[in-house]
Amino acid sequence: MTTKAEWIAVDWGTSRLRAWAMDADDAVLARLSSPRGMNSLKRDEFEGALIELVGGHLADARTTPVICCGMVGARQGWKEAPYSSLPFGVEPGKAATVTVPASDPRIAPTILGGVRQNAPPDVMRGEETQIIGFLAENPDFEGAVCLPGTHTKWARVQNGKIVEFQTFMTGELFSLLAERSVLRHGMSDSAGTHINAHIKNDADTPNSEEFASMTAKAMNEPHLLLARLFGLRADALLNGLAPAAARARLSGLLIGAELAAARKFHADGAVALVAEAALGDLYAGALKSRGVAARAENAGAMTLRGITTFFNKIRETRR
Amino acid sequence: MTTKAEWIAVDWGTSRLRAWAMDADDAVLARLSSPRGMNSLKRDEFEGALIELVGGHLADARTTPVICCGMVGARQGWKEAPYSSLPFGVEPGKAATVTVPASDPRIAPTILGGVRQNAPPDVMRGEETQIIGFLAENPDFEGAVCLPGTHTKWARVQNGKIVEFQTFMTGELFSLLAERSVLRHGMSDSAGTHINAHIKNDADTPNSEEFASMTAKAMNEPHLLLARLFGLRADALLNGLAPAAARARLSGLLIGAELAAARKFHADGAVALVAEAALGDLYAGALKSRGVAARAENAGAMTLRGITTFFNKIRETRR
Repeated sequence: MTTKAEWIAVDWGTSRLRAWAMDADDAVLARLSSPRGMNSLKRDEFEGALIELVGGHLADARTTPVICCGMVGARQGWKEAPYSSLPFGVEPGKAATVTVPASDPRIAPTILGGVRQNAPPDVMRGEETQIIGFLAENPDFEGAVCLPGTHTKWARVQNGKIVEFQTFMTGELFSLLAERSVLRHGMSDSAGTHINAHIKNDADTPNSEEFASMTAKAMNEPHLLLARLFGLRADALLNGLAPAAARARLSGLLIGAELAAARKFHADGAVALVAEAALGDLYAGALKSRGVAARAENAGAMTLRGITTFFNKIRETRR
Repeated sequence: MTTKAEWIAVDWGTSRLRAWAMDADDAVLARLSSPRGMNSLKRDEFEGALIELVGGHLADARTTPVICCGMVGARQGWKEAPYSSLPFGVEPGKAATVTVPASDPRIAPTILGGVRQNAPPDVMRGEETQIIGFLAENPDFEGAVCLPGTHTKWARVQNGKIVEFQTFMTGELFSLLAERSVLRHGMSDSAGTHINAHIKNDADTPNSEEFASMTAKAMNEPHLLLARLFGLRADALLNGLAPAAARARLSGLLIGAELAAARKFHADGAVALVAEAALGDLYAGALKSRGVAARAENAGAMTLRGITTFFNKIRETRR
């Protein structure tokens, strides 16, 4: 007989739903994943999507806490969870959470709210949990945490708290340009809308060179970003630039421009990359070419650690 | 009885087909337009789309020359027309053209080829004809010609020839971001994929201020382009930024970044804007804020003048 979960950790993003069935000692009983992200669900479909994924791990005789982070708490999500203000850390009772009334008596869902910055205006939902996870593992860290993805976040951390952050639509721009713009004609064995579309072809050595060379150009002359995009198409038309090379250049161009715009975060001090391995490698390589040594942390592990940290604070508060 | 056309001028772009029925003195008998642009047509559908639009102006007893410019000559178009190299002007026999065998005996179509630049690689199809039209009207002009649109072109003109140019995907980026990215949520009474999506709301005075203020920011700090995009979404979420204002800011951000990247074209010397009126006004305003006085020229008139110039050269050559 399967051990039933003591609680469930959920990372519910725009395009994916991930869950961990946890025991009483916060050890993982099972890792679960489904494509039913927020974008694919209407409000009344969230509970069903969750039960479909985790139902087999729920005890019938008691109510299991389900702690969710991510876009599930957005206005278009399951239930809107308010934003917390900066500086943001883990303090009992401070994190903005909402409980969701569930019709299935086996679950008691809580959604962790995101974080807002008033000036310049910015928001995050989910990344704050990864940063809290990272800080739980590295309580003395001071510096910048970069979380590359569809919407890359750069955050400055001081005294165990997020004090400032900025969002870059780098991954989304890559997907739009590679799949929907005129550039798609030269990238045609592409691509998928996945966050990792950047690195689909990182096995090709020449692409690493294309990536590195374009990243350097983009960092040196970030103001020329808009002048360089169409060159990828023209180079394909006139010189037969290969699709994999064109994708590597586009990725380098955008990541290089992001790093130039994010310079205040990584210009001095420590940098931690919380990323999927391949995407993290791209960022680490680009930063290294600028003399910035970034430490790499696994994104999934930080998410679970962050949700666990919040859950323990919630438990403490309730005792 | 309608006077039949002596020849037909055609501007066949990605999303629209425009034609002018012309008399023997190059005066316009009729202006015609259809949404059957290159993107909506398979190779064997071009002739039918053309006949559908201009058929009523064709004489039955003779063959009418049809002179086409634009994306109709692209690889995905009716028939590929080769690129000419720089420097590019109107010289008999030099312009790369292709004739298209038509099954309808009433038409003899010719497609004007585009122009290529080898380093940095770039191409244009259609804009060269507008520039030639502009130069036919202004033979002594020296300086930069800007043709704003889906793919804005900046070209440097010397001695009656295009000597250098650069493409900016400004209009396409605007449409992708306003309609397909996460920013669409804050621009929801938008927008259409039209080239002029930039200026849908230029009637609102506050938007002109939003546009001007963001253009200035973008020109002053073009390297921060990627850092500013998501701010439009966050400002909507946190502060209720209105859709029209968000669109004006996005437009200002992109046009400002383009002008910063195109600085070498407009930093000194004369600037001519060949544009639809409203889009031209946006560019003219942004340039004026930088002390650049740009003269405005009507895009449609320049296109017809350019096609007419080429047709007369072709006629001379054939005589």
